[in-house]
Amino acid sequence: MPVGTLASVKGVSQDVLEELGVQILLANTYHLYLRPGVGTVRQMGGLHRFMAWDRAILTDSGGFQVFSLNDLRKVGEDGVTFRSHLDGSSHFLGPEKAMEVQIGLGADIVMAFDECTEYPADAARVRASMELTLRWAARCKNYFEEHKREVPWARAELAERRSSGRPRAAVPTLADQTQALFGIVQGGMDPELRRESAERTIDISFPGYAIGGLSVGEPRELTREIVESTLEHLPSNQPRYLMGVGTPEEIAQYAQLGVDMMDCVLPTRAARHGLLFTSEGKVSIKQVRYAQDESALDPACECRVCQRYSRAYLRHLYASNELLAQVLNTVHNLHYYLATMRTVRAWIRAGHAVAN
Amino acid sequence: MPVGTLASVKGVSQDVLEELGVQILLANTYHLYLRPGVGTVRQMGGLHRFMAWDRAILTDSGGFQVFSLNDLRKVGEDGVTFRSHLDGSSHFLGPEKAMEVQIGLGADIVMAFDECTEYPADAARVRASMELTLRWAARCKNYFEEHKREVPWARAELAERRSSGRPRAAVPTLADQTQALFGIVQGGMDPELRRESAERTIDISFPGYAIGGLSVGEPRELTREIVESTLEHLPSNQPRYLMGVGTPEEIAQYAQLGVDMMDCVLPTRAARHGLLFTSEGKVSIKQVRYAQDESALDPACECRVCQRYSRAYLRHLYASNELLAQVLNTVHNLHYYLATMRTVRAWIRAGHAVAN
Repeated sequence: MPVGTLASVKGVSQDVLEELGVQILLANTYHLYLRPGVGTVRQMGGLHRFMAWDRAILTDSGGFQVFSLNDLRKVGEDGVTFRSHLDGSSHFLGPEKAMEVQIGLGADIVMAFDECTEYPADAARVRASMELTLRWAARCKNYFEEHKREVPWARAELAERRSSGRPRAAVPTLADQTQALFGIVQGGMDPELRRESAERTIDISFPGYAIGGLSVGEPRELTREIVESTLEHLPSNQPRYLMGVGTPEEIAQYAQLGVDMMDCVLPTRAARHGLLFTSEGKVSIKQVRYAQDESALDPACECRVCQRYSRAYLRHLYASNELLAQVLNTVHNLHYYLATMRTVRAWIRAGHAVAN
Repeated sequence: MPVGTLASVKGVSQDVLEELGVQILLANTYHLYLRPGVGTVRQMGGLHRFMAWDRAILTDSGGFQVFSLNDLRKVGEDGVTFRSHLDGSSHFLGPEKAMEVQIGLGADIVMAFDECTEYPADAARVRASMELTLRWAARCKNYFEEHKREVPWARAELAERRSSGRPRAAVPTLADQTQALFGIVQGGMDPELRRESAERTIDISFPGYAIGGLSVGEPRELTREIVESTLEHLPSNQPRYLMGVGTPEEIAQYAQLGVDMMDCVLPTRAARHGLLFTSEGKVSIKQVRYAQDESALDPACECRVCQRYSRAYLRHLYASNELLAQVLNTVHNLHYYLATMRTVRAWIRAGHAVAN
């Protein structure tokens, strides 16, 4: 899932995302809650209509940003008080509030509000944090079940808005459905706690499960161990979502372990810093060695950037701080990631995947 | 002509420019001379191949930027010594050098090196400046005639490079031709000097003529008077190019006076500052009044932005500093300008143009 933090994949228009074959986008609840605010998105009919995107959207719970972007947060049983990174204003997010906001944003998949346990953390701290996440998961489920019909794309509202003369392509095709709420497994780097978190989250019952609390500074080998051991305890006939990974090699590896969904800012953020993924390895396009390199960025790549432009031109755009550098670099990296996943899916269809 | 200062219309990829119907781009010699340098562009086969654009390109002479971006310039009979706005390094541009650089860049149309007379200026200063521009025009023509075969897209070189495995779309379709060098009329705000400048520039003989030295701070009514009186002295069967204008209303007006070509940063620069041209007037998209406005930016507009996105979304992108704001705003404004010119051409074909 490419990341569209503020209801936009930075620099890439929605028609290009469609052309790239993006099936689902991730948007960040924390950022959208602050700008433009859930009231505006709800008023506009939800994220799909607001950003004119009728393919799938997933919103995170906001928890990760509240914990990672706020040094002055205060965590209590009911949630987290934090300050906006924009203007320092005080806000509160907890299980019920995170559900209310995500129902208002109206993504297809919404996430339970969890505490992303820091790394390293001692055993008592990891257990306490896991227990808090479990209590929040149950509260999220309860709130969601009571309020899930309040999603802004209810059928009646849609019909009314259809006649309001908005831009054509902005009318979504969604019918009278509700969102899917996924639970999140925590438990730090302890396989036993991960098992317990998985089992007790499954007891609450969700249509899909995420593995959270990884990629928080631990060694990559440990990430892999925890992913592998946690997957064993999650039903393989429901979506299993590994949050916040990874490099192209990692996403292929995790997919073959049995992970169905992943999100990461790496392809888009790296692109904006001139770091490009290619079939020949990483290319730092700012380097002077590319200044007169007439070859395509990745001769094996079929994206519109590699089909048209030379490394020399991409290097010039980047070195000159041209907006188009960020646009083209992002398009290429997204294509590379999506092509990687298409290859992985082909392997799986051909029966090469690790059974899990 | 949209402006692509550094061989890129900021934020807009070449395929979108094609889709918008852009027939010719302007690129800035001064900026390209500094970055990536004429050596690199020549080595890459000229601007068309460098930026993978096989429609027309015009380069200015660099003179305007040398005069407007450099407070420490020193003007002599042979040209101008100036400091780079990037690193303060010292450079020289004069008639021969400007031709050498523009031949190396390889645009379709190149401009004589002129002195853009400041406004206001006294009569003696305007005449001296005009005489300097005339002497430079003759020197440009001489240098150009002697060196015009050195353009990087000579037929032999093309054939050789075709087999070099570059990205497909980057191979230009240009054959064994030379560039077109246009002369520039100066003469300040004095119709008599403008007439003299036009006649003596025509005596040197160019395939097209530009009107320079306008839009330099003078009142708009004066601009129009000078344009009108200067056009009378320029052959109507050759391209007449008014440099550096203007608003949508102005370009329609000048076109009807007989101007064939214009360039302006206004549509692209204004877009990046959230100022959008619509059939209902200018829209400053940053305003909070658009925060929940579901309507298209311009309901009468057929561009891909107005077809897909709401004002509320465009306002959110701009207010949140999202890259996509600059991309979409620029696409819309370019469409608006190009549509304006298409309308003007239809009027002219229908016989409504002022005869000139």
